[in-house]
Amino acid sequence: MTSSLASRTSARPQDHRLDAASSALDVRLAARRGGFVGHTSGLAAEYVQANLAVLPAAQAEDFRRFCALNPQACPLLGVSEPGDPTLAALGVDLDIRSDVPRYRVWRHGELVEEPTDVSAWWREDLVTFAIGCSFSFEHALLAEGIPLRHVEQGRNVAMYRTSIETQAAGVFRGPTVVSMRPLSAADAIRAVQITARLPRVHGAPLHLGDPSRIGIRDIATPDYGDAVEIRDGELPVFWACGVTPQSAIATARPPFCITHAPGYMLVTDLMNRDLVEA
Amino acid sequence: MTSSLASRTSARPQDHRLDAASSALDVRLAARRGGFVGHTSGLAAEYVQANLAVLPAAQAEDFRRFCALNPQACPLLGVSEPGDPTLAALGVDLDIRSDVPRYRVWRHGELVEEPTDVSAWWREDLVTFAIGCSFSFEHALLAEGIPLRHVEQGRNVAMYRTSIETQAAGVFRGPTVVSMRPLSAADAIRAVQITARLPRVHGAPLHLGDPSRIGIRDIATPDYGDAVEIRDGELPVFWACGVTPQSAIATARPPFCITHAPGYMLVTDLMNRDLVEA
Repeated sequence: MTSSLASRTSARPQDHRLDAASSALDVRLAARRGGFVGHTSGLAAEYVQANLAVLPAAQAEDFRRFCALNPQACPLLGVSEPGDPTLAALGVDLDIRSDVPRYRVWRHGELVEEPTDVSAWWREDLVTFAIGCSFSFEHALLAEGIPLRHVEQGRNVAMYRTSIETQAAGVFRGPTVVSMRPLSAADAIRAVQITARLPRVHGAPLHLGDPSRIGIRDIATPDYGDAVEIRDGELPVFWACGVTPQSAIATARPPFCITHAPGYMLVTDLMNRDLVEA
Repeated sequence: MTSSLASRTSARPQDHRLDAASSALDVRLAARRGGFVGHTSGLAAEYVQANLAVLPAAQAEDFRRFCALNPQACPLLGVSEPGDPTLAALGVDLDIRSDVPRYRVWRHGELVEEPTDVSAWWREDLVTFAIGCSFSFEHALLAEGIPLRHVEQGRNVAMYRTSIETQAAGVFRGPTVVSMRPLSAADAIRAVQITARLPRVHGAPLHLGDPSRIGIRDIATPDYGDAVEIRDGELPVFWACGVTPQSAIATARPPFCITHAPGYMLVTDLMNRDLVEA
């Protein structure tokens, strides 16, 4: 009883217990209580993590259309009602104001704050968008024995702006951003098959081989994330990336916006295995 | 009545009526009656066509194992009982001795004859193997709007011996033979997804990109079929090919063997659409 009471009342729960075997709710509650402010990569590994975008209702309808028009880059996992901080379809007791370990608050495209709770910023017109994330398909690739160099090297994935324009919707527009993973041809062929069955987390690659075909001038210099070596006999394989909607929001400079901080994702109750479509 | 009687008794049925809309039975009966001795490419387009190998029982068990060990190159659609010229699972009223438009008869690896009927060669120990053929997956690719240059140009597909060794079984062994189709990266990614769902007709590609990785020294000089241009921005995409078992038989030089003549396939009652697996 003492221990139970302590954990319920502690301002600093035992977040060091969070690991790949944790539940999504464990991670969200640890984030909510303020004891956990770390990256979510590798935590609650069976669960789907999501990119977060919270926009005023005045911009939300355009953003919803933008996602629908660009489903590979912006696969919507869930959308809230205006002002509603819950997303029941994505998590029991989920409170979008507190359950992400770190947020970014933006005004007219300028970063204002990086808080661990956005209750003080909440408004009755805010609409939450949860967008699929590559963690889920990387989990599937690794489970099938496909090595991912950036994971082995503990680095962020390499990301690039491309010449593939998104379909614009209202103020939201801009280039498709892709993530790149170097793979042998045989693994690239398997990776296409595995990720094609995961359309809610970016689906099959958009491109493979010659980077210049999609407007990437220098593969050694990613626009986001870390460079990764492409070895002899490997092909660069490119997937649409959740940075695409972030980039579109940055360009649109809406009056107000909340996103997750990079790497600090919303951990949902959806299971990775349930994302697989025939 | 007169017309019907004429068609039933004619030694030369109206095979000029055979086209993409014909049934498999139409093609087989026309071949059986001797009126049709043409290539089967493009005929009875909804139906699965098969490579044929007929071997004495003494070699058949090894060949069956060879196919089982190398399912991408040798996807078995059906195997007969020894001496039985029917293959009920593959066609109503199918008679393997007469229903293929042209055969090749081999003794110790030497081509003896190219008859349009092998009834005179039939033996009580012969086992028939029907092996999936790329016509079915090409049909699926074209149906999805993926252009195939060799089809557009009315040429045979380019095929190459590779450094990928098959798994040997008894006397049957040798290199995997692949067919190559040049595709844009986007079409290659779609083609992987489409053909991965067709494992009974070679399935997903084995390789794409650099031909030297699978031991092909000169992509402009195929070992079988016709060379095809690879244009700027295209990748060569390589699938395991039904010439692999033919090559293994040629190397094994069994005392006796019957195959189809290249391009003169067994047209089965299986439907291409029924080959799709989830």
